[in-house]
Amino acid sequence: MSKYMDVHHGMKGITADQLQEAHRRDLAIEAEEGVHFERAWADPNSGTVYCLSEAPSADAVKRVHAQAGHPVTEVHPVPLTIE
Amino acid sequence: MSKYMDVHHGMKGITADQLQEAHRRDLAIEAEEGVHFERAWADPNSGTVYCLSEAPSADAVKRVHAQAGHPVTEVHPVPLTIE
Repeated sequence: MSKYMDVHHGMKGITADQLQEAHRRDLAIEAEEGVHFERAWADPNSGTVYCLSEAPSADAVKRVHAQAGHPVTEVHPVPLTIE
Repeated sequence: MSKYMDVHHGMKGITADQLQEAHRRDLAIEAEEGVHFERAWADPNSGTVYCLSEAPSADAVKRVHAQAGHPVTEVHPVPLTIE
């Protein structure tokens, strides 16, 4: 298991409720892939959303996000963390 | 005060010790700008570092990082958070 930071673009105007709902959809199915989405941050002005997860692979992160309806292409492993 | 995510590039090969030292240099001077760097994540392979802060402005984040020796151009406000 490793930490991953993934980045969504094109989410301009996303609201707090929409972010919560998207996160809820990830949580509902993440166990199938052994992923856990821990945190998320969104900038409605630029349409950027960052998600931090613990996952077995970047592909597992992509599969959960895709199945939850918000596919992502940019997934970076972040093995070094200060939290 | 708002949350900001800033992104450094070109840090290929960064080690855990170097990340800790960079974070320590931020913490040592951040109060001058009213900034607090809360978390950081690094991918040594791609050379990407993400820093999460609470700050009065993006410019304040940039000034602290620049003075600490690791200037950044990409600073995104992230007013929506799930933590």
